[in-house]
Amino acid sequence: MLHGLDERTANIYAPVQEGLQRVDDKLRSLATTETSEVQPLLKYVTDVGGKRVRPAITLLCAQFHPHDEARPIIMASAVELLHLATLIHDDTVDNSPTRRGRATVSNTWSPYVAVLFGDYVFATSATFVCDTNNIRVIRRFSETIMELASGQLMEYFTAYDPAQAKELYNDRIYRKTASLFCTASESGAVLGEASEIEVQALRDFGYNVGMAFQVRDDLLDFRGDPSDLGKPVGNDLKNGVLTLPTIMLMERYPNDNLVKALFEDRTNDAKLEKVVEVINDSTIMADCELVVEDYIDKACQSLKSLPDCEPKQSLLELADYLTARRR
Amino acid sequence: MLHGLDERTANIYAPVQEGLQRVDDKLRSLATTETSEVQPLLKYVTDVGGKRVRPAITLLCAQFHPHDEARPIIMASAVELLHLATLIHDDTVDNSPTRRGRATVSNTWSPYVAVLFGDYVFATSATFVCDTNNIRVIRRFSETIMELASGQLMEYFTAYDPAQAKELYNDRIYRKTASLFCTASESGAVLGEASEIEVQALRDFGYNVGMAFQVRDDLLDFRGDPSDLGKPVGNDLKNGVLTLPTIMLMERYPNDNLVKALFEDRTNDAKLEKVVEVINDSTIMADCELVVEDYIDKACQSLKSLPDCEPKQSLLELADYLTARRR
Repeated sequence: MLHGLDERTANIYAPVQEGLQRVDDKLRSLATTETSEVQPLLKYVTDVGGKRVRPAITLLCAQFHPHDEARPIIMASAVELLHLATLIHDDTVDNSPTRRGRATVSNTWSPYVAVLFGDYVFATSATFVCDTNNIRVIRRFSETIMELASGQLMEYFTAYDPAQAKELYNDRIYRKTASLFCTASESGAVLGEASEIEVQALRDFGYNVGMAFQVRDDLLDFRGDPSDLGKPVGNDLKNGVLTLPTIMLMERYPNDNLVKALFEDRTNDAKLEKVVEVINDSTIMADCELVVEDYIDKACQSLKSLPDCEPKQSLLELADYLTARRR
Repeated sequence: MLHGLDERTANIYAPVQEGLQRVDDKLRSLATTETSEVQPLLKYVTDVGGKRVRPAITLLCAQFHPHDEARPIIMASAVELLHLATLIHDDTVDNSPTRRGRATVSNTWSPYVAVLFGDYVFATSATFVCDTNNIRVIRRFSETIMELASGQLMEYFTAYDPAQAKELYNDRIYRKTASLFCTASESGAVLGEASEIEVQALRDFGYNVGMAFQVRDDLLDFRGDPSDLGKPVGNDLKNGVLTLPTIMLMERYPNDNLVKALFEDRTNDAKLEKVVEVINDSTIMADCELVVEDYIDKACQSLKSLPDCEPKQSLLELADYLTARRR
């Protein structure tokens, strides 16, 4: 069993357990093969373990047909490495001292090192993808990096702007989160020699799981996430980032816009607490849960046309687990 | 004639003038076609013009055989865009307020925006390369980004370490500068349907011109670069960065190591001035010029096996001009 996985996750990953171990080995081996300057950095970021959700999706989506084993494994490694690269830069620009209880690269070394090392990891992930020899997958990978960066930039440029509709929020969370889930599932399907119809179905699965994952994550900001000890409730809102609950709140009370009042008086913690309280006391959180459920339903529906098999069962369970586990 | 080019450069670029115009158009059109958040940023960085040396090399190296015009042009655009992306991140980590008299992205917007926008530009350049449909070129491009980032990291990690031999310096300047020149020439040759022997010859040309270019740039730090108004002489050394003149100085006077003395007393400007003075008063600068000449000779030698034609003549003149123009 992979280091750091709970029993349920290990069960879900069972059909790709060996592949995930090879992904892990591949990532860890970087720290011994690359240029000496970056070795300690690579060791630091690949030592973490983590849930390996995105590479698991890639490997599971490759399992529907007989295929060359090596290519989905290299792709899954690239997907995880890209995820790690985005975390390095996100933590740097956000000045985050820690992530999941561990000092960030920016904090341990410096922002200077973190920016350049993040670039190095982005580029390493892109060279991995070249080993798939599949231009469609290579292109999709580069486009994903563009979407990830533009999603973060959208968040920055729209901060403290109360005039944001759901469509903008959806586009933003697609870019910053669901895009990579799409790429994880689509590339697994393509390299697993799925038919074009199956590729689209698995891509839809990745999209919907990714959207559900981000909406759920945004809900935790109003409830407190037990795994993010010390992160204050309402942190997104404090930083001017509108998420689904606040957008729903503004839609419901256009004439008494508490969010606008807060943004005009940003350091007023009482106003922040008030928004959090009103949201938690209303049906908004329950309605947001319905949005998550809806994405999960769509994700599961998208797999309908695929043959029943162990990997499909794992994808269905993973969708449920990813968005339900922190309720 | 392309905006901002002097007459001699325009003459050298004559065989690829139309191609360079298309590169310029392609880069500028990004600012009108991409996601709205990044449009002002793209406009800001593509408005600059500049010498377009790297894309010119790509286009010239593609001219030795009949070929599909579109692919070298897209590659040349990618090469220039990658160069722009590295400048965005380098200026951010260096906290540079201006570059060539114009405020940097980091200074105009913020380091937050500059890091993420740099990522966006890196990724955009990578999607351009995908349009070449040539896996060899795509892979080389990703490896180049790794080399560029690791070169900058090497410079950071070895700063203020007086125990650096020429080999380390050569490896460092290959990564941070010559790597992209190699990629510019090699990819042009590959996409211009050159034979493998010709590809290697043109790659060697790019390597040697790139090395000469960086050594020359490092010499200017001891002499003052008229185009970098306000940049103090000895700036690299002040930041702990060893370049060829200082390495030569330490080799010649191992028992009276002025550089080591400076690094042990970093804020002592008199010690810095002393190093600069000793270097300028010795034969070191002339010997460094010989190193530059040697690289240029090798660059020109590497083109010997190629048929005489206008693009070859331009490459030879460009090599000379690039490294001689600031003497």
